[in-house]
Amino acid sequence: MSEGNSGYTRRRLIQTGTAGAVAAGLGTAGSAEGRKRRRPRKADVIVVGAGYAGLTAAYRVAKKGKSVIVLEARDRVGGRTLNHVLPGGKWSELGATFVGPTQDRVLALMKETGVKRFSTYDTGDNVYHAGGMNQRFSDTSPFGSAPPDPTTAADVALVVERLDMMSTSVPPDAPWTAQNADDWDAQTLYSWVKQNSSGSKQFMNLVQIATEPIFGAEARDISLLFTLFYIAASGNEQNPGTFERNFDTRGGGQQWRMLGGTQLVPIRLAKRLGHRRIFLNSPARRIVQSHGGVHVHTDRLTFHGKRVIVAVPPPLAGRIRYDPLLPQNRDQLTQRMPMGTLIKAEIFYDKPFWREDGLTGQFLSDEGPISASFDITPPDGKPGIIMGFIGGDRARVFQATPARQRRQQVLSELQKIFGDRALHPKQYLEFSWVTQTWTRGCPVSVLGPGTLVGFGAAIRKPVGRIHWAGTETSTYWNGYMDGAVRSGERAAAEVLAHI
Amino acid sequence: MSEGNSGYTRRRLIQTGTAGAVAAGLGTAGSAEGRKRRRPRKADVIVVGAGYAGLTAAYRVAKKGKSVIVLEARDRVGGRTLNHVLPGGKWSELGATFVGPTQDRVLALMKETGVKRFSTYDTGDNVYHAGGMNQRFSDTSPFGSAPPDPTTAADVALVVERLDMMSTSVPPDAPWTAQNADDWDAQTLYSWVKQNSSGSKQFMNLVQIATEPIFGAEARDISLLFTLFYIAASGNEQNPGTFERNFDTRGGGQQWRMLGGTQLVPIRLAKRLGHRRIFLNSPARRIVQSHGGVHVHTDRLTFHGKRVIVAVPPPLAGRIRYDPLLPQNRDQLTQRMPMGTLIKAEIFYDKPFWREDGLTGQFLSDEGPISASFDITPPDGKPGIIMGFIGGDRARVFQATPARQRRQQVLSELQKIFGDRALHPKQYLEFSWVTQTWTRGCPVSVLGPGTLVGFGAAIRKPVGRIHWAGTETSTYWNGYMDGAVRSGERAAAEVLAHI
Repeated sequence: MSEGNSGYTRRRLIQTGTAGAVAAGLGTAGSAEGRKRRRPRKADVIVVGAGYAGLTAAYRVAKKGKSVIVLEARDRVGGRTLNHVLPGGKWSELGATFVGPTQDRVLALMKETGVKRFSTYDTGDNVYHAGGMNQRFSDTSPFGSAPPDPTTAADVALVVERLDMMSTSVPPDAPWTAQNADDWDAQTLYSWVKQNSSGSKQFMNLVQIATEPIFGAEARDISLLFTLFYIAASGNEQNPGTFERNFDTRGGGQQWRMLGGTQLVPIRLAKRLGHRRIFLNSPARRIVQSHGGVHVHTDRLTFHGKRVIVAVPPPLAGRIRYDPLLPQNRDQLTQRMPMGTLIKAEIFYDKPFWREDGLTGQFLSDEGPISASFDITPPDGKPGIIMGFIGGDRARVFQATPARQRRQQVLSELQKIFGDRALHPKQYLEFSWVTQTWTRGCPVSVLGPGTLVGFGAAIRKPVGRIHWAGTETSTYWNGYMDGAVRSGERAAAEVLAHI
Repeated sequence: MSEGNSGYTRRRLIQTGTAGAVAAGLGTAGSAEGRKRRRPRKADVIVVGAGYAGLTAAYRVAKKGKSVIVLEARDRVGGRTLNHVLPGGKWSELGATFVGPTQDRVLALMKETGVKRFSTYDTGDNVYHAGGMNQRFSDTSPFGSAPPDPTTAADVALVVERLDMMSTSVPPDAPWTAQNADDWDAQTLYSWVKQNSSGSKQFMNLVQIATEPIFGAEARDISLLFTLFYIAASGNEQNPGTFERNFDTRGGGQQWRMLGGTQLVPIRLAKRLGHRRIFLNSPARRIVQSHGGVHVHTDRLTFHGKRVIVAVPPPLAGRIRYDPLLPQNRDQLTQRMPMGTLIKAEIFYDKPFWREDGLTGQFLSDEGPISASFDITPPDGKPGIIMGFIGGDRARVFQATPARQRRQQVLSELQKIFGDRALHPKQYLEFSWVTQTWTRGCPVSVLGPGTLVGFGAAIRKPVGRIHWAGTETSTYWNGYMDGAVRSGERAAAEVLAHI
């Protein structure tokens, strides 16, 4: 835990821009040294991107005794994970936060890097705020964390059961081959839900409450087939995915947290790989394949490898220049994998006062910027932290609102749910993943109709010496840290078979 | 006409890479001179992209006495237009080919540049090839070029009438404000057609025959609202758009052709602007705004202007680096505007033999690679040329087929429709716009559900000193040359109001 707080990332952040960093052996393509050097730096494998996927791939390659260099555009490692360091060796996460059962690969990697888990706070009732009213409920209903609203209960039961059932016929490694793929990829989730439920305003609001945090998108943005794939992927080889795992704390993807924060795993992987192997501030601009290998160009340095693993979000992979040009379907695929629209708000209090009222801190709300929340208080109980997801339409309205009003709106929403004490936080934080140059949205690429059936087969297919990683390429837990780890391990295995 | 054939573009293509070109005053950012020059070249306005949109914008700016520089990534001007030069002062088009009534702005620009039009050959019957049978028909039915198949006629009538009617409530300049925008942007064209027709296999095949050439996409890929916008845009301020104009020859977007080929207008605009103002082989990599103006960086040169007009396809505009970063919605919009999948096949014969059989050369086919064709024979009748559109799913299957088989498939399809004479062409040509680095697909950006409602408002909104052009930004004839011209004129007016 201390590493996350010791300023390891901060230190690197400051050092890599300086001559001192170069002298100390920290690679940075923007350094004065870099400008002079003309010969390419060489390794067996070049990895583009130092998030969970890229660092896992690099680590697996290095463990097999092969040389590897990791190029990272940012001044830090971790990709879509980012620890917010608090005083006293504590942290909160501004990016990915939770892990859960069936996420075997990230759990194994935590063990391997000595990162412990603890349970997400989940004692007491959740709150469902709808139609201006609060309703307390326990998440022990047959439908997990779905609120027991009589106006929506029948729809929830029917829709979740049918989606889960339909998803069992979607192979996570090739959703475009499902028997009904053509039909399911020709409609939006919205169309299907509207036709297969009462279509009541209350229920459609609840659908929005589900899709905004899970996808950073609205039901209209998503293909039904993509939704079914995402559900099928929310499991592992032994346990078929379910919709509920995306949403639930107990038994779901939000069951545990990492001691030290989720960025600790990539930080430790980076440490083990060593500073000389990781180049920060080094976006890959161009990838040139030739008979003898592959050259990866950053703004000032060139790297040569036998193989390259590109482990960045698809829209960013599509912005790299490739020579020769990528196959048609691959480029057109990355044109069709936009990132969701997701903002996180974190509100810090002296203590998690809602717990005194028998509340978990989890709520679902059909108004206000936040559609779903969690208690992400550190394990010792201080400070009390509510983390809220603001996604899709609500994120777009929110980001167009002046800062002071945004804060006011969030606090006013929390007041309605937790009472007046919510109005006086110690600290208020927002983090928009859409504004991040090197992510361009979160949590994941969201696929509209036609993409999987028309272009999906290109998602993992290596192109000559180029291999693809990143959570969007994963067959299980696509969109999650576990998917990123799986993709890194798969890509590493692919290149190791060739070098 | 002679310019298209004099090798003007070819000559430039060869010259711009040489020292001679520089000596002759032809700008090229890749020149030896360029490498030495450090001070930015200056103009009031920098235009990125030398297609119809960019060159129109530059020409309008220059005519107002303001200085302008055009940066073009390719070694030629014309963007999505490309003349294929034939012996004897003739040509065919590998890109945009037709113009039609209500396309006022491109017609005016043709007049201004002295480019004449002539009628697309349209005498005789069209052929509808479906279920393995040929049916001849005249395009004088109430539904234009729709085939009079009794199994689909009722569906065609109903669906076209309803789409046209619905489109009248979609404002082409703000489709996201239509009263039913939310509902229409939550479903695909496929879902809507399926629900509002018999949904018969024959009719759904016909829908595919329509969407593949018009959008380079399938009905499942397109939002209903986007479809309605596209229809509403197929007209002008006085004449509301109709679906039929997208498809028809007589009275529609395919009524006329340009004498000398469609690339002649951009070539003439480039000539009038002068070689010193146009930099070929100069992709804009980075656009940096500051208080005093805007810098546009190519690989080796920098350009400074008071304003910049970006006139390239949205997915390519999204790949330029912007400093400061573009507003969130703008970047997320370009992540959601993929280019269609479109290939053109051109088959050359000694003469247009189908005319002797009383055929127009136009056919619609539910099998074979080509879904729709036109006779694009030069005005003197030699050689006879059939141009076929291969789009969407058929394009993806086609591009994965070996070259020899592709040719065979196309000729076999033409044989079924025109008889054995079709088997012996003089020449066979294919042109895939998907493989073009600087277009990445054709004919236009195709929008899936959610894009217009969630992100559409960013499409034309200037970002500081950056203005947006390109046919995708046009309110009328979006996706056509006329839309490109309109967008260029609008962007020019925007910058002229500021400088």
